[in-house]
Amino acid sequence: MIKEKRLRSFTEKIFKALGCSGKDARLAADVLVSADLRGVDSHGTARLGGYVRLYDNGRLNPTPQIRIIHETPSTAVIDGDKGLGLVVAPFAMKVAMRKAKRYGSGWISVQNSNHFGIAGYHSMLALQNDMIGWAMTNAAPLVVPTFATEKMLGTNPIAVSVPAGEQPPFVADFATTAVAYGKLEILQRKGLPAPIGWVQDANGGATDDSNAIKNGGGLLPLGGDREHGSHKGYGLGAIVDIFSGVLSGANFGPWVPPFATAGFHGVAAEQVGKGTGHFLGAMRIDGFRPKEEFKESMDTWIKRFRETKHISGNPVLIPGDPERELEKIRRTDGIPLNEKVIEDLKGLGERFNVRF
Amino acid sequence: MIKEKRLRSFTEKIFKALGCSGKDARLAADVLVSADLRGVDSHGTARLGGYVRLYDNGRLNPTPQIRIIHETPSTAVIDGDKGLGLVVAPFAMKVAMRKAKRYGSGWISVQNSNHFGIAGYHSMLALQNDMIGWAMTNAAPLVVPTFATEKMLGTNPIAVSVPAGEQPPFVADFATTAVAYGKLEILQRKGLPAPIGWVQDANGGATDDSNAIKNGGGLLPLGGDREHGSHKGYGLGAIVDIFSGVLSGANFGPWVPPFATAGFHGVAAEQVGKGTGHFLGAMRIDGFRPKEEFKESMDTWIKRFRETKHISGNPVLIPGDPERELEKIRRTDGIPLNEKVIEDLKGLGERFNVRF
Repeated sequence: MIKEKRLRSFTEKIFKALGCSGKDARLAADVLVSADLRGVDSHGTARLGGYVRLYDNGRLNPTPQIRIIHETPSTAVIDGDKGLGLVVAPFAMKVAMRKAKRYGSGWISVQNSNHFGIAGYHSMLALQNDMIGWAMTNAAPLVVPTFATEKMLGTNPIAVSVPAGEQPPFVADFATTAVAYGKLEILQRKGLPAPIGWVQDANGGATDDSNAIKNGGGLLPLGGDREHGSHKGYGLGAIVDIFSGVLSGANFGPWVPPFATAGFHGVAAEQVGKGTGHFLGAMRIDGFRPKEEFKESMDTWIKRFRETKHISGNPVLIPGDPERELEKIRRTDGIPLNEKVIEDLKGLGERFNVRF
Repeated sequence: MIKEKRLRSFTEKIFKALGCSGKDARLAADVLVSADLRGVDSHGTARLGGYVRLYDNGRLNPTPQIRIIHETPSTAVIDGDKGLGLVVAPFAMKVAMRKAKRYGSGWISVQNSNHFGIAGYHSMLALQNDMIGWAMTNAAPLVVPTFATEKMLGTNPIAVSVPAGEQPPFVADFATTAVAYGKLEILQRKGLPAPIGWVQDANGGATDDSNAIKNGGGLLPLGGDREHGSHKGYGLGAIVDIFSGVLSGANFGPWVPPFATAGFHGVAAEQVGKGTGHFLGAMRIDGFRPKEEFKESMDTWIKRFRETKHISGNPVLIPGDPERELEKIRRTDGIPLNEKVIEDLKGLGERFNVRF
């Protein structure tokens, strides 16, 4: 167990050591530690070494000039200038919220960025302003479209956050695949097989091999197979890719560059755009209904769904419940980092002369 | 086989017989026949009798005063005045496009409407203006959230249409469930079992009973079970419900009134809003990138995905491909209506003195 505060301070110092400003380092550390607190361990400080490798490979600019390169009252494209996605996405979300404040909604497509951490962090920024927040990002290809034997899409997550009144907010944040890649990595480490329906083998056949992706297989879209709607998961992943990559002028589809931890496929020699793309949005709730009226209805929605008749012992959850519960526990008890991650962080500490 | 033109003319006359204006009847017929042409037979003229029953039950206003009841430059809520969803949704889409033309994007939440036909029809209206179109709707409860034994959400479809250049547009249009309800109805008529993963029984257990929903069971969200991501399908259906129902002041969740064909559950005595809700959006592509540049990239996206390595005999499709192909065939050869539907249409013809 490591206390949130200590992990936050360490992470901030590493980003500073890369040359990030104090403000950017603090923000980037907040996004990563927030993932650790919320239980999305694969997207937290476990990735800190990956960002450092991006820097080492010349793919990360620690002092980016993030700027709007095109806009209308409610839309814009932002160039992330190869900055940390962890910093570029909150910048874009601020622009979206500024537009929403004035025009009801704001929609930002981002080019020339890289991995932005958990999508939910960015969508949740809207909540404090009584807005609905959206966040999506494309990512390096791991996922096979329906009928494909070739990886064409990233896990391309979608996050939507909706404010409520007395109830905690609704926060949906999910990869458009049957399962997050992090869950496969856990099975790989333990030498365990994967449930059928998570991955396919190199020929497109069903397999329980948790290492299938390394052997030419691919992650399955949400739905699993055609009979159970995998074309819908593929469609969702495609929408995220188009909004994040095609709309912004970033790379898209199989051309999205890998994050520096993903050692099992190289960067495509050919590029069709700049870096990784994101899509962020904000809608003012009082652009639709009076604020208090909306929040009251949202409370009714949440309470009614919590009361759903359910399988014994398994109450129906509201999107965001598990992460919020875990955050409450981990803020007090600390964050359980795994040994490999602790090793990595210690190594970074030694390299940059920062005490872990 | 029945020719498109004949079906269109008949459908238009029935809507006129209900009291709709010539313009509204033509539009409503176009939405229904478009579903038949595109192969979404469950949402085409097979539902005409259902709209007539809505009228008979006093739930359909043939001459609605559809109006904006609240707005900002890029957002609005529209009251459908109990009009045909088939007419209310295109009205809302027009408002969205007008806002997008001026402010970059337009987002409309609709209350007091009813069944709007296929979501794809409405999202595709944006294509002619070089915009990306969105359409969603909530619907009467058929779907069980993860762990639930109670139906809480409709099949709540999402449609997104994206224009391309030389390539045909990208048109994703799908229910947020493992399978559309129409596919279960086909199995019911044939007395065949359903694949495991489409429905659950009254106790929340796996079943292949294609009549399970009538016996207390429910339709499963996209993903099927928790292990394969059903919480993601549930989250998507919930987002559609909140945007369509809570944001507009329509009914939501278990309170959404049933379409008049769904005889196996009643209208909830209690109502939390007005009628059924929709959510429609339009984003100008040149609100993000120069039009021709975007279209060129979109062509690259589509061509690359068409060339994906695939399982022998099953090329990778672009969302919208199957419907477009079918439309081409059916425009020439006619529409294969099933016997039961022909009977229903003949009955309507007799009642309203319209020759089928």
